[in-house]
Amino acid sequence: MLRVDLDATDAGRTWVHRPDTLAVEEPLEIRVGPAGPARRRPLAVTMRTPGADLDLAIGFLLTEGLIRSADDVSTAQLCAGTEAPNTYNVVDVTLAPGVPEPTTDATRHFHTTSSCGVCGKASIDAVRTRSPFGVADDPLAVPAALLAELPQRLRAGQRGFDRTGGLHAAGLFTADGELVVLREDVGRHNAVDKVIGWAVRERRLPLAGHVLLVSGRASFELTQKAWMAGVPLLAAVSAPSTLAVDLATEAGLTLVGFLRGRTMNVYTGAHRVTG
Amino acid sequence: MLRVDLDATDAGRTWVHRPDTLAVEEPLEIRVGPAGPARRRPLAVTMRTPGADLDLAIGFLLTEGLIRSADDVSTAQLCAGTEAPNTYNVVDVTLAPGVPEPTTDATRHFHTTSSCGVCGKASIDAVRTRSPFGVADDPLAVPAALLAELPQRLRAGQRGFDRTGGLHAAGLFTADGELVVLREDVGRHNAVDKVIGWAVRERRLPLAGHVLLVSGRASFELTQKAWMAGVPLLAAVSAPSTLAVDLATEAGLTLVGFLRGRTMNVYTGAHRVTG
Repeated sequence: MLRVDLDATDAGRTWVHRPDTLAVEEPLEIRVGPAGPARRRPLAVTMRTPGADLDLAIGFLLTEGLIRSADDVSTAQLCAGTEAPNTYNVVDVTLAPGVPEPTTDATRHFHTTSSCGVCGKASIDAVRTRSPFGVADDPLAVPAALLAELPQRLRAGQRGFDRTGGLHAAGLFTADGELVVLREDVGRHNAVDKVIGWAVRERRLPLAGHVLLVSGRASFELTQKAWMAGVPLLAAVSAPSTLAVDLATEAGLTLVGFLRGRTMNVYTGAHRVTG
Repeated sequence: MLRVDLDATDAGRTWVHRPDTLAVEEPLEIRVGPAGPARRRPLAVTMRTPGADLDLAIGFLLTEGLIRSADDVSTAQLCAGTEAPNTYNVVDVTLAPGVPEPTTDATRHFHTTSSCGVCGKASIDAVRTRSPFGVADDPLAVPAALLAELPQRLRAGQRGFDRTGGLHAAGLFTADGELVVLREDVGRHNAVDKVIGWAVRERRLPLAGHVLLVSGRASFELTQKAWMAGVPLLAAVSAPSTLAVDLATEAGLTLVGFLRGRTMNVYTGAHRVTG
């Protein structure tokens, strides 16, 4: 890697060769099949940072509504290759008896009607239909001053970001601000799936009374994942989207954005943020 | 929206209600079918910021290797709904006669072998197979001092970001640093597809001699899109991933990351960045 610093005071330091320290990105294929000898079929490929791959696969299956708990999974294994570490890029999941095999691509869960094509409302309806957990009545209450401290706590745990500057993070916190689990990934959605998959495997769902913090923006997809795991408060360091706010409203989930320094925006469920 | 500023000097300004200004996010379904009366089938759903939807669809088809130029598309239209503006969320594409219909989901283009499952090398091979343009011999040369100015020029054109703080941007520049086209979206990949789709419709491909700048990180996916459009230099404000660097190396594409202020990292193809 060539580092260019046009303002270097020593002209000899303007162009400097340095070793790379990069965020690792590799594809992971998630294969799913029913109990028994039937072949497991590819369900999705995601570009992710290797590590916590079983959590990622389990979290993905749960947040897509394909499983509801660890009991719905019979076995999950990282396929063993014979070569370098980066060849371990397939997770094979066998569902428990009676759990229906996914019939369509997991990206295909949007309802379509003749009147509106694919619209935000239909997407929200689809999540509502699939979420097993209600979060609207969750009595969680978190002081704003505590929320304001969480990004530092997340950042302090981000070992990969320190090295590469290129990893997103998701962290699950208790109502007292204690970090329960943190995961990093080149993709925000993967970091969240890894956190939720860990919680599924630890049998901690629904994640009532918890706060989920993400390092980037709050999209529809991340809000969906929070709801599917029963998280009552999603906080993001950056901006939310319209559809994220609409979905959080529908769920009764508290959505906090631009959580930076000593300020934040509370878009929905403001009763959970206290003085 | 409730704005919380714990450091507000006037205690009455600590908790303030404000109107929302959010980045709009809505699903867009891209449907594709062959020439003739056959039904167009759903190919992909992407969560995007409405606007430039035809560019988005065309850019997506090109960067996924399903079309090679505007000539491969017979018609592309945004389906007309009868309700609110956000119901126009389907793009129908009819391919030109002789252009093969996509047989598989566009997310399924990773090769899988028994030895390595899904690995980065296979992903790179798949892109190499599909890219119609070589960029390795592109004689583009850009002064580092000019590159350093591009993020400001991109930012200056980002009207949506000013309002919402939540939109990514992609900008296409000439070798002289002139902004050719800029697109914003909640998703980086969509912003890039909108830029490339515009260029396809303007019959400007391959984008030899151009610089593509993205506001976020440089992932494998964005590097793939740059190569598919024949762009010889991809610059990103934030970090690249390992697989992005590997793919850029394979393509002979110049990859610049952490382009901020007066500094940058040149990961590949450093001969195109001049003093």
